[in-house]
Amino acid sequence: MEHNLPHTIALLSRTPAALGALLRDLPEGWTLGNEGENTWSAFDVVGHLIHAEQTEWIPRAKMVLQFGETRAFESFDRGGHEREIQGRSMGQLLDEFARLRSENLGELSALNLRQEDLDLRGRHPAFGVVTMSQLLATWAAHDLTHLHQISRIMANQYREAVGPWSAYLGVLQCAGHSAPQ
Amino acid sequence: MEHNLPHTIALLSRTPAALGALLRDLPEGWTLGNEGENTWSAFDVVGHLIHAEQTEWIPRAKMVLQFGETRAFESFDRGGHEREIQGRSMGQLLDEFARLRSENLGELSALNLRQEDLDLRGRHPAFGVVTMSQLLATWAAHDLTHLHQISRIMANQYREAVGPWSAYLGVLQCAGHSAPQ
Repeated sequence: MEHNLPHTIALLSRTPAALGALLRDLPEGWTLGNEGENTWSAFDVVGHLIHAEQTEWIPRAKMVLQFGETRAFESFDRGGHEREIQGRSMGQLLDEFARLRSENLGELSALNLRQEDLDLRGRHPAFGVVTMSQLLATWAAHDLTHLHQISRIMANQYREAVGPWSAYLGVLQCAGHSAPQ
Repeated sequence: MEHNLPHTIALLSRTPAALGALLRDLPEGWTLGNEGENTWSAFDVVGHLIHAEQTEWIPRAKMVLQFGETRAFESFDRGGHEREIQGRSMGQLLDEFARLRSENLGELSALNLRQEDLDLRGRHPAFGVVTMSQLLATWAAHDLTHLHQISRIMANQYREAVGPWSAYLGVLQCAGHSAPQ
């Protein structure tokens, strides 16, 4: 489907509750396990979602409005979540993510974007010209890529436990890993 | 990690609320879109989860207890969800999934499995001997494979909308599709 701003907002507004329902008070065997050296746990991913709320979506939308194509977005710091997660619990991260998402959806609403604003152009540091519409669609798809990643990381904790069923579980065959945005 | 029955139950008990938070009242552009001909929408996947609750996990656990390796499980009917979804809304499917899951966790509890029961052996129609432990771990991993699938199906609806960001979104590169259980 084409990008539809109300659909994007509908998804963005649901992700914090969906992650909360899945991850809050879940045993740490699920949430702190990763996929091997230099990979993330579900806990790390929630930290990354917090960091992206702080530095990526609304700041970039404002850059599109203010500078258009003349100035490239700041590069996203893929390790930037590390200070977010230090000494915190999953419950605290989930609360923080929900609070930031709610604030950012408020900011988005306050930008009062008209249909024609979705065609405004900005500049991505790696691949050049992008549109406001693409940026906002990516905000929603980024939630989905990390929900996809969390389910894959957690399934990996049972890779041996499922025995021969591993052949039938697509999540255990997934090689669709994300790069920085 | 090794299979841990309380961890399995913790995950199984959270999935209905997580799917509800994500999918309830979400625009149909997200929930009825699929990945092309002969593929499932998120709506179909919730129907499949209902069908699996009805025919797969607890019935198979009871077969392990009653027949051990002497009798193979019924094959799972991958099209069996079609009568579940006919004429129903996403909200109805989510309610039905939550109700069945809760009943089945009650049945699991009533089986009162001891640690040594997890080593009991049953027979899968395709790959032969499996254990009770593998069956129950697969129940949880099956939730995760379908959460992984739902996030991939929904992200696919924005494949074009994200423009050049598609290169960075792992969910759009995923080829980890599931086979019947």
